[in-house]
Amino acid sequence: MNSIITIDRQYGSAGRKIGSMLAERMEIPCYDSALIGRIAEKTGLDEQFVRESSEYSSSPGVLLSVLSGRDQYGYAIQDEVWRVQRNVIRELADKPCVIIGRCADYILRDRPDILSVFIHADEDIRIRRVKEEYHDLKPGEDALRKIRQMDRRRKSYCQLYTDIYWGEARFYDLCLDSGKFGIEKCVEIIESLY
Amino acid sequence: MNSIITIDRQYGSAGRKIGSMLAERMEIPCYDSALIGRIAEKTGLDEQFVRESSEYSSSPGVLLSVLSGRDQYGYAIQDEVWRVQRNVIRELADKPCVIIGRCADYILRDRPDILSVFIHADEDIRIRRVKEEYHDLKPGEDALRKIRQMDRRRKSYCQLYTDIYWGEARFYDLCLDSGKFGIEKCVEIIESLY
Repeated sequence: MNSIITIDRQYGSAGRKIGSMLAERMEIPCYDSALIGRIAEKTGLDEQFVRESSEYSSSPGVLLSVLSGRDQYGYAIQDEVWRVQRNVIRELADKPCVIIGRCADYILRDRPDILSVFIHADEDIRIRRVKEEYHDLKPGEDALRKIRQMDRRRKSYCQLYTDIYWGEARFYDLCLDSGKFGIEKCVEIIESLY
Repeated sequence: MNSIITIDRQYGSAGRKIGSMLAERMEIPCYDSALIGRIAEKTGLDEQFVRESSEYSSSPGVLLSVLSGRDQYGYAIQDEVWRVQRNVIRELADKPCVIIGRCADYILRDRPDILSVFIHADEDIRIRRVKEEYHDLKPGEDALRKIRQMDRRRKSYCQLYTDIYWGEARFYDLCLDSGKFGIEKCVEIIESLY
């Protein structure tokens, strides 16, 4: 019996949407932005900083600063975010829920009741989605470049704090091409395994 | 509508069994050893050589020889196997079928009616399976070592002839952990997407 669903995803692959549709159907909460709010609250840090200090990062220097911006004890503020994030995710996972991103699959890896999912799609489909449905492209920003950049950062973040190779099938229970199957079908498949 | 199912898999993950169960249920052929027979027939090469000149290789020197054993035109006999394999797979894919391994997903990548699947499982589960159900462990051969060696070879073979990173989710429509879900459930999921 799985009680927690974690969803990791390529940028623009509709992983977040699949997660929230799934949660709605199963009448359980879906944590995404709410997670960031909680981490911000617990660390006393600004929400924007918390967002940027991980995979959501839109500023290129963040991961570099995690590596270079350590104090004399080798400690970076992002490590504190990671520590709090880990605790918050473990607390949330006390009850059935869907958790989007933030390495929740890794953080909860020792629990047998986790269904870990990775969602991906071809670049042309993701470009269209990002252009039409996402609202975080800056004026003049190239969608393909943004997609690749975001994926690179999610991968690096994952590499920095976990033993998981982001996007490698063996680290997830289920991986789905949302472009091939469509969002609705992905929700159905995951629901049938819950 | 998908008419061809390709199954790639980690060694010991029951991908072959899933494929043959699937084919039986859908009353379509499943090509695995039969494929090797056809390639052998068309190249005039020994079946054992054909088997060894690819991912099935159990001799460590094969891939090395593909790289080093080229004639003055830069051509190795394994390249001929690859050429014939490509043609045979394209011919077989004229009618609905399941094809196990041999980079069929890559060879048929331009067709819209392919469902490409990757099957994996945790090492402890694969070790048990290899020990109990596979009959190709030599006396005294270590199962874990064999598993890792076979996966490494499948990965290298894939890298040598295709643009696919073996085992990376984005190159497959569907990836499943057969240890988590069980063989029967994997067959059901794939069937529901066919």
